[in-house]
Amino acid sequence: MAKLRMGLVGGGEGAFIGAVHRMAAELDGQIELACGAFSSDPEGSRRAGVEIYGIPQARSYGSYQEMIDVEKALPEDRRMHFVVIAVPNHVHYPVAKMALENGFHVMSDKPVTFDLTEARALAKLTEESGLLFGLTHNYTGYPMIKEARRLIAEGALGSVRRVVAEYLQGWLARRIEGEGQKQAGWRTDPTKAGAAGCMGDIGTHAENLLEYVTGRKIASLCADLTTFVGGRGLDDDGNVLLRLDNGAKGVLFASQISAGEENALKLRVYGERGGLEWSQMEPNTLIVRWLDAPAEIRRTGGPEMGEAAERGTRLPAGHPEGFLEAFANLYGNYARALRAHLDERSPDPGDLDFPTITEGVRGMEFIDAVVESSRRNSVWIDLPQ
Amino acid sequence: MAKLRMGLVGGGEGAFIGAVHRMAAELDGQIELACGAFSSDPEGSRRAGVEIYGIPQARSYGSYQEMIDVEKALPEDRRMHFVVIAVPNHVHYPVAKMALENGFHVMSDKPVTFDLTEARALAKLTEESGLLFGLTHNYTGYPMIKEARRLIAEGALGSVRRVVAEYLQGWLARRIEGEGQKQAGWRTDPTKAGAAGCMGDIGTHAENLLEYVTGRKIASLCADLTTFVGGRGLDDDGNVLLRLDNGAKGVLFASQISAGEENALKLRVYGERGGLEWSQMEPNTLIVRWLDAPAEIRRTGGPEMGEAAERGTRLPAGHPEGFLEAFANLYGNYARALRAHLDERSPDPGDLDFPTITEGVRGMEFIDAVVESSRRNSVWIDLPQ
Amino acid sequence: MAKLRMGLVGGGEGAFIGAVHRMAAELDGQIELACGAFSSDPEGSRRAGVEIYGIPQARSYGSYQEMIDVEKALPEDRRMHFVVIAVPNHVHYPVAKMALENGFHVMSDKPVTFDLTEARALAKLTEESGLLFGLTHNYTGYPMIKEARRLIAEGALGSVRRVVAEYLQGWLARRIEGEGQKQAGWRTDPTKAGAAGCMGDIGTHAENLLEYVTGRKIASLCADLTTFVGGRGLDDDGNVLLRLDNGAKGVLFASQISAGEENALKLRVYGERGGLEWSQMEPNTLIVRWLDAPAEIRRTGGPEMGEAAERGTRLPAGHPEGFLEAFANLYGNYARALRAHLDERSPDPGDLDFPTITEGVRGMEFIDAVVESSRRNSVWIDLPQ
Amino acid sequence: MAKLRMGLVGGGEGAFIGAVHRMAAELDGQIELACGAFSSDPEGSRRAGVEIYGIPQARSYGSYQEMIDVEKALPEDRRMHFVVIAVPNHVHYPVAKMALENGFHVMSDKPVTFDLTEARALAKLTEESGLLFGLTHNYTGYPMIKEARRLIAEGALGSVRRVVAEYLQGWLARRIEGEGQKQAGWRTDPTKAGAAGCMGDIGTHAENLLEYVTGRKIASLCADLTTFVGGRGLDDDGNVLLRLDNGAKGVLFASQISAGEENALKLRVYGERGGLEWSQMEPNTLIVRWLDAPAEIRRTGGPEMGEAAERGTRLPAGHPEGFLEAFANLYGNYARALRAHLDERSPDPGDLDFPTITEGVRGMEFIDAVVESSRRNSVWIDLPQ
Repeated sequence: MAKLRMGLVGGGEGAFIGAVHRMAAELDGQIELACGAFSSDPEGSRRAGVEIYGIPQARSYGSYQEMIDVEKALPEDRRMHFVVIAVPNHVHYPVAKMALENGFHVMSDKPVTFDLTEARALAKLTEESGLLFGLTHNYTGYPMIKEARRLIAEGALGSVRRVVAEYLQGWLARRIEGEGQKQAGWRTDPTKAGAAGCMGDIGTHAENLLEYVTGRKIASLCADLTTFVGGRGLDDDGNVLLRLDNGAKGVLFASQISAGEENALKLRVYGERGGLEWSQMEPNTLIVRWLDAPAEIRRTGGPEMGEAAERGTRLPAGHPEGFLEAFANLYGNYARALRAHLDERSPDPGDLDFPTITEGVRGMEFIDAVVESSRRNSVWIDLPQ
Repeated sequence: MAKLRMGLVGGGEGAFIGAVHRMAAELDGQIELACGAFSSDPEGSRRAGVEIYGIPQARSYGSYQEMIDVEKALPEDRRMHFVVIAVPNHVHYPVAKMALENGFHVMSDKPVTFDLTEARALAKLTEESGLLFGLTHNYTGYPMIKEARRLIAEGALGSVRRVVAEYLQGWLARRIEGEGQKQAGWRTDPTKAGAAGCMGDIGTHAENLLEYVTGRKIASLCADLTTFVGGRGLDDDGNVLLRLDNGAKGVLFASQISAGEENALKLRVYGERGGLEWSQMEPNTLIVRWLDAPAEIRRTGGPEMGEAAERGTRLPAGHPEGFLEAFANLYGNYARALRAHLDERSPDPGDLDFPTITEGVRGMEFIDAVVESSRRNSVWIDLPQ
Repeated sequence: MAKLRMGLVGGGEGAFIGAVHRMAAELDGQIELACGAFSSDPEGSRRAGVEIYGIPQARSYGSYQEMIDVEKALPEDRRMHFVVIAVPNHVHYPVAKMALENGFHVMSDKPVTFDLTEARALAKLTEESGLLFGLTHNYTGYPMIKEARRLIAEGALGSVRRVVAEYLQGWLARRIEGEGQKQAGWRTDPTKAGAAGCMGDIGTHAENLLEYVTGRKIASLCADLTTFVGGRGLDDDGNVLLRLDNGAKGVLFASQISAGEENALKLRVYGERGGLEWSQMEPNTLIVRWLDAPAEIRRTGGPEMGEAAERGTRLPAGHPEGFLEAFANLYGNYARALRAHLDERSPDPGDLDFPTITEGVRGMEFIDAVVESSRRNSVWIDLPQ
Repeated sequence: MAKLRMGLVGGGEGAFIGAVHRMAAELDGQIELACGAFSSDPEGSRRAGVEIYGIPQARSYGSYQEMIDVEKALPEDRRMHFVVIAVPNHVHYPVAKMALENGFHVMSDKPVTFDLTEARALAKLTEESGLLFGLTHNYTGYPMIKEARRLIAEGALGSVRRVVAEYLQGWLARRIEGEGQKQAGWRTDPTKAGAAGCMGDIGTHAENLLEYVTGRKIASLCADLTTFVGGRGLDDDGNVLLRLDNGAKGVLFASQISAGEENALKLRVYGERGGLEWSQMEPNTLIVRWLDAPAEIRRTGGPEMGEAAERGTRLPAGHPEGFLEAFANLYGNYARALRAHLDERSPDPGDLDFPTITEGVRGMEFIDAVVESSRRNSVWIDLPQ
């Protein structure tokens, strides 16, 4: 079966997430990087295609507009199937819009757009287009996250009462954006990142993970954002009180100035009969605690895994699967759903288990609420339900 | 050297903390349980003294009033030196008051009183009496907590920016107070526990630990308390946003309905150059993370410990010291300070490292602020500075 | 009920284990240190009694002989009940012999004697005397060790197949006995420690723990001992292959030159249907793994504990109990068994759960076998069954 | 730059390691699976190529002989560059031999051959051919293993004294080879696996890891192998005493009947000044302990990593890299070395950091020694130096 062809926007020199997209997308042999526009500088873009990604000159484009125009004109059996968007936030919308309007499916980085208005416009465009829109809230790709979601959905823990969603990093503890660090540069620039810094970049991951695992929505929140590093234009740390739609309560906090932390995304959920704990840095373990029985260590590839987790597991238990494999799980479901779409058949329901424009809009609603609450000295703000 | 004599109020049948006080107080051979009033029921009280504690009939009193009256009349070399208060919150104040007024030093459970008014009155009484008042915020007795405090005080982490103080338990996930569980009974009864349930019982420990370790004060807070279990009269869960007096931010959360959690008190503090993490359930380990160097595992009895930690360490590294040993460290300093007082000499400054009425008042201020903020839908409330 | 009175031999200045004995013995209020002979130097011995232990001058003896002689002459209601032996190995036998011959019960440090001949003589003496002989293989006092033993005895894991018993320390990685370190001094001196160094001091703990938990005996072993540090007279490291009496296999290794290790005693046992893992440095956790189900985290004070573990648990789950508490559990059972003996009634069977001269002889058999195997270039040596 | 083309032998239906080879080889965009012979059944082989791997019919061969013959005749710019051998042990030699004799480079599974005679013949063939022979001792591909090796090579720990190499699995705790489990089938069959079962399959990984990290050779060993599961033809568990060429001592143990264990490969090494510990199931962490300073947690992507580790790290710290990424690191170095070979230039020395036929012969020497020692009731057997 021929591979699905992706066109990558972003991922030029100094980028990190572009290479991640390629490795993750290609991991299962379903997708190949066929073309790309890797940089806003046409020369750099073409060079990156050939030198970094080994793509033929002809399909290493100078811009995403060129890519879409030229690919559209290619015969169907060579033309790319979908566009991957791995550029700073403010460019997400124009790329996605042009892709959709020209009939290309989309897989985009998060947060989905620069602001909520764009996100809603994109949702409308996506719906009208009938095309597939995927969003790389990649942390939901971990098998143990699927397990956590399943246990809660099946009622094993009883009704959810308390959540703790946290995401601590330390890499912005100093003003490295002033030293030319590209990743830090746009993420701390309000004209590129949007209304939130840390909360947009990683807070949204915590929000998405929490809603995905619990199956509940944040009903309202009360936030306090801070910019600790002088001269920085956006929040680099924030704390949020949460009320969920079923009466559960919780906290969500995210930080990029927690010196010494690497990428500490962690989720805890407590229900009436038990609780669970998952940490991204040891992703193959899910601790499940019970009110009246010993806690359990559930493991990727181990006993009693459900179908969604099985589908995202490539190796026997004890052979650690990591960030790339979880990322690849999003692409795996996306690819299967896309094949069903191309074949004009209904996808397997399990294949639809990837974040879409819906989660994208949700993330922007979260950002808006957090920023507004913080601006108004932490009043409670309701989120759309 | 003769042992210091303590009189225990509380700790009768069904109690847990009374035995803890005895074991902790006596551990280092400085103190002996000399007498007590163990229950509000005179018969039960006398029986407990003889049968549980092996105290002579004559000093197993029927009430604390009797104990204080009779002990006061004993010759100085037999009379108890101090009163330990291990009863429900609403009885703390009358016992402490009577003890102080009759010349007895006091070691009391926390929270220090039923409400802030009582706490302030007690502070005044204590000051006027010139007697020693200790408060069993026992978690500050752990050597690794002393180390955490030292590292921050010495500036190793730079200025503190973010804190996470959490205390999760699950034992009140069901309405066990309705089944005659004594510990649950008074803790969930607003006429005995005070204005807060979970936040008073364990939230104050988290507050105390945070202020002790960081050396900073909570400047203001924004709280959301919840009662999850139907029919319960006080909060059993709560989340709090914090602003510290130096501009640091953070969260504090406490819960007694986090099903499956045992006694998960945990503190994380991040400064400009590094962060630290401590967990009460593995208390002999302190993780110290650095912005530019590998994280360290500092250990009770291990290399590079400071004096306060050394003083609270009885065993070589790798011989776990636990809850009782930490509790005993409070008594150790208290006993040394008390001996100095009795000898009319200045105590070693290190001996004054135990919580006092000052921390007691602070805890009540915290409770008041948390309850008020929550009642007013999470407005920011300033704490006295 | 009056406390049992102990007389401590050893524990003078610079010792560590003497204080441990006092704290552990007294922890539960059943025993009090009544007298002692703390040093081989009569002056130092008397001074230590008064200054370190707060014992009256009259019962701070100049030698163990004096202690036994004088105490024997005291009226029964003041006389010590038992002698605690906390001195270097070569002194165990004479003290124990004299104590038994004069009608005193004994609690002794391990290894029980200098050599196997002495151990067997002591076993005979003990039997003839009808007195209680306890041995401080204190690590079997941990509640989770009791649980491990129970799970295996009840057949939960099926027949035992593989064991890994390890005990790694690093404190002798340098020749600190040359610098006057007292603890290191006698332990590395073949005239005081016996035929083995590391294997006698801590290897025997691993052996005892393994036989206690599995309920199986070592049938034969094959050992390779090493002295890594120049100028040292005894092994400081050793590796042993094991064959158990039911056909199970395993390894036992112990080291005091594993630089950076603190006190890493660890046991793993695998049966047909599952395995378990326990680590002394996190003693309140027992990991139980299953062939077909998620692993479990069993915890001191947690759900599903058996009676022997319950009996050794003082605090609710999550309040860490450590080395002293486990040590105290040996004394607790010993004290209850001793009271039954004094009252001339049958002890509760659970009270007999403490190591005795039988385990003492076993340890000496182990030492003999290990030393002989190593001397003969690791031939298999059978142990008595 | 065009990708290197690999031809895969093995990896048909029911196999696991074939897919691993494809994912690992292709991860970094340097290699593509060009052709293969996936099964000993010609029909199944051709079908697997098309259906599992998406390879064109023409290059999905019916046998490895056919593959080598046909590929050899292809023009150089289409012909495969190297053969990957992922079949049961007894087939390694004939495939490798034919590949080398026809000018194809080789990447082979371990143990390298069925027996030592074949291994030595293959070493000779490899040398004569001048071709590249890689061996998938994939666990040496982990960045933290490179770090461990570097720290020891640079002398940070001082001279190595003690090692503990262990590899525990539980999947063969029952006789699943009797239920048609393919992986278990050949591994427990002495006509396919060779002289050792568990020791050959995973014991060799432990041996390789130990010699790689310490830079020392096993001088002699003393082994005790066991077959616990009735009806099984090879050892499923074994314990080995080790003496290294510098006087260090240690143990190596491996088991496939340790019920409940997943894939617990773990290495500990202690030198004069410190020790280190690494566990495959949490591969991004290396604990480094020091005699006189707090232990360190070194992390993939974290501070102070050396060049070999950097080269094998794709993601920022805290983004877990797992089994496939480590496996891919072998392919990465192999691919770079192969390109240098094809370009007739000297490889970067770092590119030669992958296991070769030398490590393959070493593994067979280890198997031979272990089996002989065990057969002779655990006599010490010297290994070639």
